[in-house]
Order: sequence, then structure tokens, then C-alpha cells
Amino acid sequence: MKPVLGVGMVGHAFMGRVHSQAWRSVSAFFDLPVVPSMAVLGGRSPERTAEAARRLGWAAAETDWKRLVQRDDVQIVDVCTPGDSHAEIAIAALAAGKHVICEKPLANTVAEAEAMAEAARQAAARGVRAMVAFNYRRVPAVALARRFVAEGRLGEVRHVRAQYLQDWIADPEFPLVWRLRRDRAGSGALGDIGAHIVDTAQFVTGRNLVGVSALTETFVRERPLADASEGLAGGSRTGEKGTVDVDDAALFIGRLEGGALASFEATRFAAGRKNALRIEVNGSKGSLAFDFEAMNELWFHDHTLDGAEAGFRRIMVTEPGHPYAGAWWPPGHGLGYEHTFTHEVKDFLEAVAAGADPAPSFEDGLRVQRVLAAVEASAADESRWTVV
Amino acid sequence: MKPVLGVGMVGHAFMGRVHSQAWRSVSAFFDLPVVPSMAVLGGRSPERTAEAARRLGWAAAETDWKRLVQRDDVQIVDVCTPGDSHAEIAIAALAAGKHVICEKPLANTVAEAEAMAEAARQAAARGVRAMVAFNYRRVPAVALARRFVAEGRLGEVRHVRAQYLQDWIADPEFPLVWRLRRDRAGSGALGDIGAHIVDTAQFVTGRNLVGVSALTETFVRERPLADASEGLAGGSRTGEKGTVDVDDAALFIGRLEGGALASFEATRFAAGRKNALRIEVNGSKGSLAFDFEAMNELWFHDHTLDGAEAGFRRIMVTEPGHPYAGAWWPPGHGLGYEHTFTHEVKDFLEAVAAGADPAPSFEDGLRVQRVLAAVEASAADESRWTVV
Amino acid sequence: MKPVLGVGMVGHAFMGRVHSQAWRSVSAFFDLPVVPSMAVLGGRSPERTAEAARRLGWAAAETDWKRLVQRDDVQIVDVCTPGDSHAEIAIAALAAGKHVICEKPLANTVAEAEAMAEAARQAAARGVRAMVAFNYRRVPAVALARRFVAEGRLGEVRHVRAQYLQDWIADPEFPLVWRLRRDRAGSGALGDIGAHIVDTAQFVTGRNLVGVSALTETFVRERPLADASEGLAGGSRTGEKGTVDVDDAALFIGRLEGGALASFEATRFAAGRKNALRIEVNGSKGSLAFDFEAMNELWFHDHTLDGAEAGFRRIMVTEPGHPYAGAWWPPGHGLGYEHTFTHEVKDFLEAVAAGADPAPSFEDGLRVQRVLAAVEASAADESRWTVV
Amino acid sequence: MKPVLGVGMVGHAFMGRVHSQAWRSVSAFFDLPVVPSMAVLGGRSPERTAEAARRLGWAAAETDWKRLVQRDDVQIVDVCTPGDSHAEIAIAALAAGKHVICEKPLANTVAEAEAMAEAARQAAARGVRAMVAFNYRRVPAVALARRFVAEGRLGEVRHVRAQYLQDWIADPEFPLVWRLRRDRAGSGALGDIGAHIVDTAQFVTGRNLVGVSALTETFVRERPLADASEGLAGGSRTGEKGTVDVDDAALFIGRLEGGALASFEATRFAAGRKNALRIEVNGSKGSLAFDFEAMNELWFHDHTLDGAEAGFRRIMVTEPGHPYAGAWWPPGHGLGYEHTFTHEVKDFLEAVAAGADPAPSFEDGLRVQRVLAAVEASAADESRWTVV
Repeated sequence: MKPVLGVGMVGHAFMGRVHSQAWRSVSAFFDLPVVPSMAVLGGRSPERTAEAARRLGWAAAETDWKRLVQRDDVQIVDVCTPGDSHAEIAIAALAAGKHVICEKPLANTVAEAEAMAEAARQAAARGVRAMVAFNYRRVPAVALARRFVAEGRLGEVRHVRAQYLQDWIADPEFPLVWRLRRDRAGSGALGDIGAHIVDTAQFVTGRNLVGVSALTETFVRERPLADASEGLAGGSRTGEKGTVDVDDAALFIGRLEGGALASFEATRFAAGRKNALRIEVNGSKGSLAFDFEAMNELWFHDHTLDGAEAGFRRIMVTEPGHPYAGAWWPPGHGLGYEHTFTHEVKDFLEAVAAGADPAPSFEDGLRVQRVLAAVEASAADESRWTVV
Repeated sequence: MKPVLGVGMVGHAFMGRVHSQAWRSVSAFFDLPVVPSMAVLGGRSPERTAEAARRLGWAAAETDWKRLVQRDDVQIVDVCTPGDSHAEIAIAALAAGKHVICEKPLANTVAEAEAMAEAARQAAARGVRAMVAFNYRRVPAVALARRFVAEGRLGEVRHVRAQYLQDWIADPEFPLVWRLRRDRAGSGALGDIGAHIVDTAQFVTGRNLVGVSALTETFVRERPLADASEGLAGGSRTGEKGTVDVDDAALFIGRLEGGALASFEATRFAAGRKNALRIEVNGSKGSLAFDFEAMNELWFHDHTLDGAEAGFRRIMVTEPGHPYAGAWWPPGHGLGYEHTFTHEVKDFLEAVAAGADPAPSFEDGLRVQRVLAAVEASAADESRWTVV
Repeated sequence: MKPVLGVGMVGHAFMGRVHSQAWRSVSAFFDLPVVPSMAVLGGRSPERTAEAARRLGWAAAETDWKRLVQRDDVQIVDVCTPGDSHAEIAIAALAAGKHVICEKPLANTVAEAEAMAEAARQAAARGVRAMVAFNYRRVPAVALARRFVAEGRLGEVRHVRAQYLQDWIADPEFPLVWRLRRDRAGSGALGDIGAHIVDTAQFVTGRNLVGVSALTETFVRERPLADASEGLAGGSRTGEKGTVDVDDAALFIGRLEGGALASFEATRFAAGRKNALRIEVNGSKGSLAFDFEAMNELWFHDHTLDGAEAGFRRIMVTEPGHPYAGAWWPPGHGLGYEHTFTHEVKDFLEAVAAGADPAPSFEDGLRVQRVLAAVEASAADESRWTVV
Repeated sequence: MKPVLGVGMVGHAFMGRVHSQAWRSVSAFFDLPVVPSMAVLGGRSPERTAEAARRLGWAAAETDWKRLVQRDDVQIVDVCTPGDSHAEIAIAALAAGKHVICEKPLANTVAEAEAMAEAARQAAARGVRAMVAFNYRRVPAVALARRFVAEGRLGEVRHVRAQYLQDWIADPEFPLVWRLRRDRAGSGALGDIGAHIVDTAQFVTGRNLVGVSALTETFVRERPLADASEGLAGGSRTGEKGTVDVDDAALFIGRLEGGALASFEATRFAAGRKNALRIEVNGSKGSLAFDFEAMNELWFHDHTLDGAEAGFRRIMVTEPGHPYAGAWWPPGHGLGYEHTFTHEVKDFLEAVAAGADPAPSFEDGLRVQRVLAAVEASAADESRWTVV
């Protein structure tokens, strides 16, 4: 019989729902050395947490995360709360000897992220593992992109252009939910979705950003207040308005180690773009392009072919030889958003079982946090070049 | 507490794996009046079935489907076997008072399908429900297409062109798996994937095929024999060859009730097409196009708009107002192949709870079977027009 | 100085306008052994023909094609009239020793086409050349497709699916223009656009159709009468209605020499499809796909690549190594519809100068005509298989 | 009879060839109040210029542009030379009372552009017209995009993202042609293609850039020397290397009047992208997207539609109601690169005939030049925000 690891998850909104599906499904598709059990769900409201635990399939519910991270039936803590509580929960969980998987961005500030990375380093020395949940690394097409770059298929990387385009707050009457509050979310589009494209660009190319020049903007500066809610859509309106103190959009240009140029844009005001996390990489021997709105496809141009037959090819990343894909369905039978999380917990569990550090580490999360801080610093200083 | 309905599933190969994921997930995403429990898995080999039950999360295993359909902890029988056993299992299950969901094609012959439809009619009179599992009806984009036609957005339907293109047997060395044997599968591409586009075309347009003219072909007439296997890929080769006695490809043209023209093509020899179930419908007021390889998109042309701004629009079928989509993730966070089955069992469970007949019924399955028979008859008779 | 060949063109409607642009432009882009001069334009109305000659750049105008084909300043006759006059004009021109390029379909009946092919054979013996103007062969992407098949890149061809979809008569109030009259046009969608996909399929694969099974339909059987007009849009309405005696749509399935299966659909009722001449070819080693609405692109799947990196690639057919493309602009600076005609007259002039027979020949045009006749015969005989 | 205006064109390389096709074709498709005649072609080499004049259809040849601009048979001077001679030729032609159409970028420096704009202002007072040839404004899809914005279909513009991606110098062995020399071309990708996206963005939105922050890079700093050549491909190699003193790529972010954010990228190192001039605009009521590699398509998202049926729609910009398109072919029969120039000279001739100032004016060209200068200044000053 395989060892069972109990999971305690804190938070049951959007991220909690999708992480639950990952824990619920992973063992049916991947032959893992350990078996996760959905032990306990943490949340603030006793009624809502119990109801969520029942619906999502958690064996128990806790309203105090401090108790949750100490429970004997918990070996893994999964942090799915807003960014303002990541550091406190994750550090406590690591101190309690629990392996931690923490949602992104790692924290709301560089200082918090540094403390978390330090805690992870100390925990690793005791065999306790930590991972930050940049789920888009686990899109099979993104993992394949990384493989192509690592194998040298692109040659020397010269350009990266990355965008994360959404439109869910384009309407000025959309309420002031927690993701639009600096005290909860740390920043706006920058930390929520900009963090993803920074991590994706660094992951795919294997190169870190060394400096940036940035612009940010808040298009809608006042929004209706709504009842407190952990959900993205907010609750009923109160009739009052509140101030938006985070960015609606962030644009930045930068350089990667090795000299490639990169451009980034994160916005929730791109009408008609729903979840367009896009990245294109151009190298001396080839290029790659990806758009999450067609997440089962990777576009690859092999520049070493004869020009008369070269072109961007649409690889359906559903073949047995593709990352993660062989565990699921026959070719052409695509995966969806949630599968990226199933892959994430699969990799996390394998690392824990192997006594290895999972990736992306808290250190990787800190590195992204430093980029976000550099973006904010540049935007506040006439877009001046700012070293990461 | 909601009533619990025990499920007994027969078969644990490809279809069994995906049905398991549906039963496992459905209650977490849909607020259903009843709760399914994964009671017992049926299979022929004691070892393989027990192992599959453990991995897929079934509480028990049975090697005799006749016992399975009689078990007290089973209220629903899910038939995931090859077509040659559908009739026997489904009829026995209905006779035992179990609701039945049966994989497609409903049967291997019209006679079997007629017996099944008759059994379903008799069972319905006793409050026992039956459904055939044409899962592609539950792609949100396909359900939206049907809604557009039903609402009159296309006007009078004039053309349907449907294709189901795969390439997994294009290699002549691919072995003679059960889907290439008439005694097990009934037919080749025709019944396996042609059945899906016939059902999809009839579902989306709300019109049945009234006649067809057809061609079929077997490109590779001998293939390596492999160890018996329920899987698509076959087991190890025996060194001998066997005769392929089913079609590799089927083409047919026909007419729908109301006068629309339709063309169909089912093949597993379309190199580079992995699971391209495609349908386009042209009407007097608009058109629709869909390709399963981009399953989260529906293309809609509104022909009543001014010509200067009209065009096929790519609707990301991930909005709260779209069929099924609201239960899952925010807009743009797409679904995958397996979700069509989750939607299927959701609709099935709701119908069972409501005491209503689920759709597609065994009668619908029989109707598709009659089309397949007409295709084979026409192909055998100089492509002559054959009334369904 | 290069020899000058005078061109006499009959017809100045749609085809006349685009042929004029070809004659006007060809020498500036291709270094030809002969130089065409736009000598004389033929039309029925003295005023309209003179005005068209002035506007389109023809040196003279003639209202009697019989005089035109006898003129000493004419060495080439370009037939751009409706199909009912092709045979008479082309045969007379060949008899007068003029090289002939004739619009498609070659004729309105097989008998006419046979007479034309016979006249062309006799003329060729005297060094007089004839060509039928299937312009889509000269789309660079289509010519590249043919090259790929000829080079064996597709292996054994197994499937062809060809469609020509337009929507310009979907509105029942669109008038009864000449293309909807059997006496002028010979047939409807079948001869006008179906002829193109038959020729394209045979050209790209290098294989002829050997038999077909067909359906045709006239969706709108009465249409408003309009003043006689050579234009596609018709003139002002007369208030009366007339009978449409040609097909609105034609569907057929068939077999090519060598055993490939093929499906064809020609319609002018596909709302939202403007000029979607599409062809896909699947072979044992690769596949090709083309859509004229994106005419500068050819999609090629190389099935011999490792599955993990294979996929349909979008070749921008604008490279120096591509057919015709090097004569024009740098890569990525696409061509349009009219360029297919410029390429056509370029190839025609080179053949004439070389004393060689241009392709497609009148014999090729006759072959297409026989397919159209087989389609009509099958459609009239319960879709029965009809040998070409 | 319509008045005839003689054209004298200076330069017969790439731009000269395409302008010739425009002058050659425009009267056949547009019913203009004046008729251009291709009077004289200017070039440096007597032999090459005479040969080009013959091939391209110019009545005469001149080797001294100073004589050309004074000729009595010339009323229009078309400047198709590299940027280092634009100012001198255009100013002399205007002084000689000739209408001028000048290739972009208007000049190599702001000072030259200012002098040209001043000369144009003075000439306009005398009824002499000047236009800068930003041809991409005349892509029907781009003109339609501008119309949509002007009509308010996009609401308040919030984002512009523009890219011009090519790959023709990605190979380090590509020679040091004139476009890679600062003394001839003024700058690299920035002036050659970056100028186009700046103009296109300002044209489509109707808003000017007010400030930028920029990065530029020269990836390949030494290249083989080749014989002097006006062509893009360069002549035979000399065996020596020379220094590239222009940018290979330029990235910049900025703000438009009214507060929209904008990002720009111009590069010739995007392997696989041949002529991808792309622009996307997001507004509060809708969005637009365009890519020149599919130049007959405009993608439009109407954000005021119900979310369940909204999506980016592919408008084939070939309808009679679209800008320029009605003059050409039936819907779906696309145009190519050269047509943008035909539209350009059509608009120019109409303005000249009407005694009106054509657009874009030299003042518009100067405005683009100021943006390019701001980009270079910012890139040289730590990407600091630079007001245009």
C-alpha cells in the first residue's frame, strides 16, 4: 500500500475549487508513489466552509488556519487565500513541518516573499518542501515550449512578447472586489496576471529578467462597493463607491539574461479577450507561440527548414510523447484549465515523495516578486530603467 | 440529505476511465438533487478489474456483469463495453429495474438497437430511465449551436457539412484492435465516429436524415494481430496478420427533414487530424461552425447584420450564460474532453431524479443506427439513394 | 526587341476586367520571351464596349467577335463570355490560326467541349495553342500543393475533400442573372464553381475522378427578373419573376484513380462564406489544406516527423522559392485574386513562345466537363454511382 | 476628355516597382477626375534606369532627378528613394510647382522633416500638394478599422498594441544593405517598419502619441559587405565586414492623447514572421485586431452584444460597402500588397484634382518622425519617459 498524505487546504473560493479538483483526480490518472487524501478544508465562515467541504469532498472543516496547520492528519498545506495571508500561513505551516503549496503571487511584498523564501530554505534542510503554484507552467503546451528551448530548437533567444489579456473589469460598474484592493491583493493586474507571464517567460526561456521599464494605469478610479465576498464577482452592491488603489493595467519592456528583449502587458480591460495568456519567443533557429485561449495548441516555427516549406505549425499538444498528455486521453481529446492544477499537485507529490525540492520554488516566487516590485518602481519614476 | 444512487459501471478501458472521472467530479460542480456513488466496477479479469477499481475510485469490483446488474447497491448501470455486448447488458439492467446509460453506438445492428429501444420504452413505463451516451451533445459549444438553431438565429437550414477526422490507424502496421473487428465493433469508422456526427448533425439542426448515398473503403485490408486487449493501442504483436473486415472510412451525402443538404465523412486516415469532429451549418439567416480540436469555440455568422460588419465570430463558449459553462471556471478558462461526460451524467441524474426521460434516448440511438445501416446498404448498392 | 503578340479579348464584364489587369501587368513582373499588346476588346454594345476599352486600356473595340478573331493585329483570342458562346468563338478563333485562352467551364455541354478539344488537337498540329482558364491552379499555394504531391511528400493519397462555398444568392430576392439560367450558363453552382474544385482536386493530386454519386438542389425556384446584364448583380428589376432552372448547390462523392476517396460541395448558399474554395488532401505521409479566403497560405502536415512536433504548418506562400511568388514582393507581402490570372497569361505566353501546349488544355477542360455531366446524371438517377 | 497629369518617379527598386503598378492600374479600377500618365522614371545608372523604364512602362528615363523635377511633362513627382534624399528631392519638386508623393519615413531626421513640412505648407498656399506614403492606411481592413473607431464603435480607447515583425535579417550572414546603414536609412527597424505602426496606430485611433519609453538593440553588429545595391537583398559579397550602426529592433511603450496605453515593437529578427504588421485596439465598447499577413481580414469584437453571443468576428473586408473594396472584385476575392499603393495614388489624385490637401500630409510624416526621435532619445537615456 502506498503512503497516504493528508492535505489541508485553506480557502475555498475560485482557487480552492480548482485545487480540490486536482487533489480529487490526480491519483486516477498518474501512478504516484504517494496518495493524497482530502483531509481538511479551512475557511473563515463555519457554515460556508462546512458546506464547501461537503460539496468539494473534504473530510473535515476548520475555521482557524492555525489549528489546521497543526493537525496530525495534515502533512501538506495548500494555501489558496488572497495574497495578504500567504506569508503568515505558509511560514507557520513550514514551521509545523508541513509541506506547502502556495498560490501565486507568492506574497504581496518583496519583504514577505523574502521571509517565505528563507522559511522554505530552512524547511528544506529538515526535508519539508515548498512550492509556489504557477499553474501555467503545467499547461502541456507551455511545458513543451520549455522543452524546445532547452533542447536548443530555438537557438539564441532574441525576443519574448508576453501578454495576459482579460476583460472582466472593463465595465466601470463592476464592483470593488478584493482583487482590486491593495491591502488584500498587493497590486492589480500586475500581481494577479502579470506575475503569470513573468514566470512563464522566465520558465520557457530559462532566463531571468534583468531590468525593466514600465507604465501602469488605473482607468476606473472609483467603483461600487459590494458586500465582502471571496468571490471574483462580488456580492450585492451597497450603493456607495470606493477607491481603486491598484493598477488596472501594466505594460513593461525589459531584457533577459543573455540579451533578449522582452515586452509584457497585463490588463483586465481588453474587451473580448477572456483569458488570453500569450507568449511568443523568437530565436535564431525557431520561434514558438502560445495562447491559453487555445491551450491545447503550441505553434512552432522551425527556422532551419528550407524556407519554401517552413511555417508556424500548430502542434496539438495531446500526444503520448508530450508533457503530461499521455496520462489522459487519446490524441486530439483536449484538456482544460483545471488540468494544469492536477499536473501541479502530481509534480509536487512526486517531489515530496522523492525528497526533492519541487519547482517553482519559493525562491522562484521571490524572483517574480522582485520583477513586480521593479515594475512598480519604474512606473513611479518616469518609466526609468530599473534593475531587477 | 440528498438521495444516493449507486453506480455500477461495466468496462474500464478508455470509456470506463472517462466515465469514472465524470462520476467522480459531477457533484462538486453541479448542485444535483441526487448524489451518485461509485459503487462497483465490472470487468472480465479479476486482477485488472480490482486494480482499475482501486485506481479509479470504485468501491467494489465484479467480474460478472450479470451479478453487477442485480446488486442492491446499484441503481444505475453504466455500459462502457464494446458494442457487441451493449444490447445484452442494457436490456438485462433495465429488466432488473436499473437506470441505464449506454455508450454509443447504441448497438452493432439495427435489430439489437430495436430490442434495446423497446426495452427502454417498457422500462420507462415503470419509471426506469435509459440514455445513450452521445457525449458530444454536451460540449458547451455544440449545445450553444443547438440553442442558436432552435431560437431561429440561422433561419431555414440549407446545408450541413460534418466530418470526423482522425489518423490513428493511418499506419498499416497499427494492429488489428477490437475496433477494427466487425464482430466486436459492428463497423469501423462509420459506427465509431460516423455515429457521432450523425447524432450531432441531427441534434444541432433538430432534423433527422431522411436518405443517404454512400461510399465506404478499407484502405488497409490486413493488419498485424496483437494480444487481445480492450485498449485502443492493442497489446504486443503476435507476428501474424489478420483481415480488417470493417470500413476505414465512410463518406455519405444526404437530405434532412425540411430539405437541407448534408455531407458526412468519417475517417481514421486523415493524417494530422487528431480528433477533428467538425460541423458547419448554413441557414438563410446565419451559419455556425465547430471543430472539436478547438472545443471551447463556436463560430457564428449573423447574416442579418449589415454586410460591412458581418463575419464569422469566435465565441469563447466559457461564459456564465453558456450551456454548462457557468458551473466551472471564469470566462476563457476552457474545458476539456472529459467535461462532456460530466455534463452527460449531470443531465442523466437530473432526469432520473425528475422522473423524466433523458436525451438522447435509446430511440435516438436507434435512429442513428438506422442511418448507419442505410449508409452500409447504399455503399453496397452502387451508392444508390437509400431511405433511412 | 521581343516579338509582340496582339490580344483580342471577347467580353468585358467580371472576367474581362480581371483578364485585362493580367495582360496589363504581366510584362512588368515576368521576363517573357514575347510581349502581349492589348489590341482589341470585343463586346455587343458599341457604346459600352468602347467605354470599357478606354477604361481598361484596349487599343480598339469590336462589336462582332467574328471580325475580331480575323483581325491581323490579333494573334491571341481571350474568350471571357458566358459558356454558351465558348465553343463557337474558340473554334472559330483556332480555325483562324489564333491562339486561344478560354474561360471555364470549357463549355456548357460535353458535346461542345468535345468539339472544342478536337479543334484544339487539330490546331496544335498547326502550332496553334489552346488553354482553358482554370485560374485557381495559379494560386501560388495551389501550385505548391501540387508540387508537394508530385514530390511524394504526401505519400499515397487517400482522401480529398473539396468545397467551394459562396453566399451571393442566398437572398431569395437576388435576381435571375445569367449565371442562373441554363441556356446561358449550362448549369448553376456546379459549372460555375464546382468545375473549379474538380479541376483543382485533379490538378493537385495528379489523379482524375473515375466515378461519382451526386445530389443537387435548387433552394429558390423563382427569382425576380432583371434587365439583361452581363454583370453578376443584374440590372434594375422588372417586377416579374422567372424560373431558376439550374442547381443552387451540388454535392458529390467519388473516387480518384488510385483509390482515394473524394467529396465535393459547391454552393452559393453558405451564408458568411464569400469565396471559400477549399481543398484538403490526406496521404499516407502528409496532408495539405487550402482555403482561398486566405489565399497566401498553404497548410502542410508532415506525417513523417516525430509525433511530438508534428502539426499543420501555415506556410506563407510568398517566398522566392515558391511558384510565381518570387516575381512579386518580399516575403509576407501577399498577392490577391487577380494575380492568378497574371500567372495564367504568363504561363500561356511562355507556352506559345516555346511552341508547347499550355496546361490546362481543352482536353483537361473536357475531362472536367465529363465529371459535371456524370454529376448531373447521377443526381437525376437516385444518386447512383456514375462512371466518368 | 479628362486632364492628364504626368508622373515623374525617382527610384526603381522595391518601392519603384510597386508604385509603378499603382500608376499603371489605378485608372482601370477607379473613375478618377484626372488621368495619370507614366511620363518619366529617374535613376542613377543610365542602363539600369532605361531598362527599368522599359520593363515598368515609363515613357522616358532620367538620370538626374534635378532635371526630372523640372520637366514640363511632369506634374507629379513620386519620391521612391532611400530616406537620405527625400528632403532634397521633395523640396525641390515642390519649389518647381510639382505635386509630391514621398515614401516613408518622411526623412531621416526631424530637422529634414521640419523643412519638408514647411515646404509643403508654403506649396499648399500655391495649390501644390504633398503627401507621405504610409501605404498601410490604405489596406481596406485598416481603413475600416479607422471608420469603426471614428463611428464610436469601440467607445473609449484604452489599449493599443502594435507590432511589425519580420525576419529577413535574422541570419548574421545577411549583408549590410543600405537599410542597415544610418547614413542612408536614418535608423533600422525603427524608421523602416516602426514608422508604419506608429502611423497606423495614430491613424486608426485618431490620437497621437504623447510620450514614450523605449529600448533598442542591435543583435548583429557586424555583417558582410556587399556591392552597392538599391535592392533589399544586396549584391555579391566582397569578403569584408562592416559595422551595423542602426537598430535591429525597437520596443517602446507610450500613451496616446486621451489616456490610452500603447505598446510597439518593430523587429526584423522574429523568425517565421514575414510581414506581420499587427495592431489590436481595445476600447470600452469593442475591440479590433489586424495582421497584415491576413490583410483581407479585420477582426472586430462588439462588446455591447450579449456576452453569450459576443466574440471576435472575422470580417472579410472585400464587400462593396468596405473602403476601396467595391472597385475591385466580388466578395471574398482578396486583394494583395500592391493594392494599398493603388488606393494611395487614387486618393492622392482625387485630392490634387479637388484642390485639397491629401492625407497623410508631410505634417503627419513629421509627427511620426518626432515619435521616432523620442524613441531614440528615450532608449539612449535609460528608457526614461520622453515627451513627443
